[in-house]
Amino acid sequence: MPKFPNFSERVNQISGSVFETYASKMAAQGGNLVRLHIGDTYLPVSYELPIDKSFLRSNAGYNRYCNTFGIDALRDVLVEKLHADNEFLVERNNTLITCGATNALSISMMALVDPGDEVMILTPAWPFFFGMVKVAGGTTTEVPFYTTLFDNPDFDICDCLEEHVTDQTVAIYLNTPNNPSGKVMNENQLLQVAEFAQEHDLWVISDEAYDGLTFDDLPHISIATLPGMFERTLSMFTFSKSMMFAGIRLGYAVGTESAIKALNKMMVHQLYSPSTIAQQMMVEPVASREQWLPAVRKQYQGLRDICVDNLKIDFPQPEGTYFIFFNAYDYLRGRDYWQLIDACLEAGVSVAPGDSFGQDFGDYIRLCFTGESPERLRLGIERLNQLL
Amino acid sequence: MPKFPNFSERVNQISGSVFETYASKMAAQGGNLVRLHIGDTYLPVSYELPIDKSFLRSNAGYNRYCNTFGIDALRDVLVEKLHADNEFLVERNNTLITCGATNALSISMMALVDPGDEVMILTPAWPFFFGMVKVAGGTTTEVPFYTTLFDNPDFDICDCLEEHVTDQTVAIYLNTPNNPSGKVMNENQLLQVAEFAQEHDLWVISDEAYDGLTFDDLPHISIATLPGMFERTLSMFTFSKSMMFAGIRLGYAVGTESAIKALNKMMVHQLYSPSTIAQQMMVEPVASREQWLPAVRKQYQGLRDICVDNLKIDFPQPEGTYFIFFNAYDYLRGRDYWQLIDACLEAGVSVAPGDSFGQDFGDYIRLCFTGESPERLRLGIERLNQLL
Repeated sequence: MPKFPNFSERVNQISGSVFETYASKMAAQGGNLVRLHIGDTYLPVSYELPIDKSFLRSNAGYNRYCNTFGIDALRDVLVEKLHADNEFLVERNNTLITCGATNALSISMMALVDPGDEVMILTPAWPFFFGMVKVAGGTTTEVPFYTTLFDNPDFDICDCLEEHVTDQTVAIYLNTPNNPSGKVMNENQLLQVAEFAQEHDLWVISDEAYDGLTFDDLPHISIATLPGMFERTLSMFTFSKSMMFAGIRLGYAVGTESAIKALNKMMVHQLYSPSTIAQQMMVEPVASREQWLPAVRKQYQGLRDICVDNLKIDFPQPEGTYFIFFNAYDYLRGRDYWQLIDACLEAGVSVAPGDSFGQDFGDYIRLCFTGESPERLRLGIERLNQLL
Repeated sequence: MPKFPNFSERVNQISGSVFETYASKMAAQGGNLVRLHIGDTYLPVSYELPIDKSFLRSNAGYNRYCNTFGIDALRDVLVEKLHADNEFLVERNNTLITCGATNALSISMMALVDPGDEVMILTPAWPFFFGMVKVAGGTTTEVPFYTTLFDNPDFDICDCLEEHVTDQTVAIYLNTPNNPSGKVMNENQLLQVAEFAQEHDLWVISDEAYDGLTFDDLPHISIATLPGMFERTLSMFTFSKSMMFAGIRLGYAVGTESAIKALNKMMVHQLYSPSTIAQQMMVEPVASREQWLPAVRKQYQGLRDICVDNLKIDFPQPEGTYFIFFNAYDYLRGRDYWQLIDACLEAGVSVAPGDSFGQDFGDYIRLCFTGESPERLRLGIERLNQLL
């Protein structure tokens, strides 16, 4: 059955951007809109890119194809960083440079999931991941998790996961620090997930996009560094969050050499390799991160504290990331949920609706506190206080 | 059935790099090796990238996420280029910036192919495309085509394609100028493919990665610009070939607005968007292409002529691209095919084996004539002449 003008089933199964439906209303607000809906940074880059004529001269080959696993200089400085900051004992061949953590997560699903396989997603979770599982032909099992950890840090994680595992489950998706809830998992909690994964022979997809963005000196622990976990874990990192280089579009995956080879196979069939020149640009910022990253973290923590001190609603205090995630049910005041979202827009604040983060979060709202300047953030908070 | 430590079936179904098995032998040759196996350029970039402090100042947002369809400035200059160079009558919303043409082709398969669908591939063809169809769950039907066009330019194309079409065929993959054969299709030939596609309600994937790289002033015609073809064609372009910016990793897809939206949905689930700063860097080179692209083309034509004048084997003269593709059967001289490939390597010339370009080309060899300087190319030719 020739199919022009129809697209594949995948196109209908997955959602586009969460915010598409609001684009015109947001545009109508123009400069008045305080944009708290999207995860981005208002800060100018803290590290000045050294790109000039001498950069191009000293990076011969910047316009040419490179090793599809990544350029040696970047992989080597990341090995040093993974060792020093994340307690990974890895070598160059355990790393793959990707086009953002988005790309690393996408190829992990293509490399691990066959049609009919189930992936357990701890929720609330990053919206695009649900679509990635579907694109690979898999199905998702959602387990409400991070909000529960805020309410009850000592709940029995193995028991909870046990209720949702099936014979088709092949992998579990973990994201700490968590977007959207701001939860940072502690070692005890991670050990339970690790035990469960080993018990059930599951792959673990550890999304660590917010590595480096924890507050109050809370440690970020990589589950792959716990006993027996490295071989079954694919750990995903990005340059887009704490490093502030989202527009460079680079990330990296860490795993066993055979897993990295499988991911690379999928990546070359999606995009061949990430940008050579972008990789060359990122070597120095990684090498010098101690001179500029702590100041970024401190500024973000300051923005979080503006919210904690001024936002007059109930929300769990974020331990990391860019976000506040709260149940808006008590603030509806006669409106239905979507009327509230509309009312926020009309009051000049864009927010992210909760349902895209998981089926159990239809009453929730996510706010990003790093995308606007402190003054604009305060204005947004004022508007929300009046409305809620 | 929990599957750790196994990967998905896809990983086994597709091949990695063609050259992986030869990596150690190539490395052993070191600087002596004349590298004719891979499609790349030996030329320094002809357009000097204007990246310096003032570039960063005038491109605010270079480190931030951008519109996932691409930045306006680049889409607009490409619309102008498509209009002027390719006779497309398109607008900004008919374009999608991708991470190379590789990415554009990958998302086209994800957006068009359901499991069980067949894609007709005119061969010889770019090796990764076969894997992309498989990754999307489809199967490939190979039609020996471009080599036949050299031998018999007037053969009945519709008749030939008719023999291979089935009820499961949903799309046809076309690549002109063709890698690896160097064939450039003329209007009469393209009209027949267009008629066949309309007759059978097929999508057309038009891979135009070598747009801008035809010799002897031969025109490159985009099949989408033929009557009735725009709506069913996805046309794919890149900055990696005639533009010489493979290391920037950008390409673009052109199609109807609904097709571009479907492609974008697949792309955001693979990598969100291509690099913002890379897109900003490419605006000026496209705008000023008339000042530097013709000289590049002329240099490449000179390299082709070095081969035509000096290589003492039978091969169809390339009309475009980087490549010479010839049947090595007559040059085996008692060796089997793989012994010949090995003999080339041992003589200090790397070549690309034909079987990765299609099942009917196991006796062929591809040579790239643009990856080495004229002196080194002459040395490679001398070695091949002795060997063959």
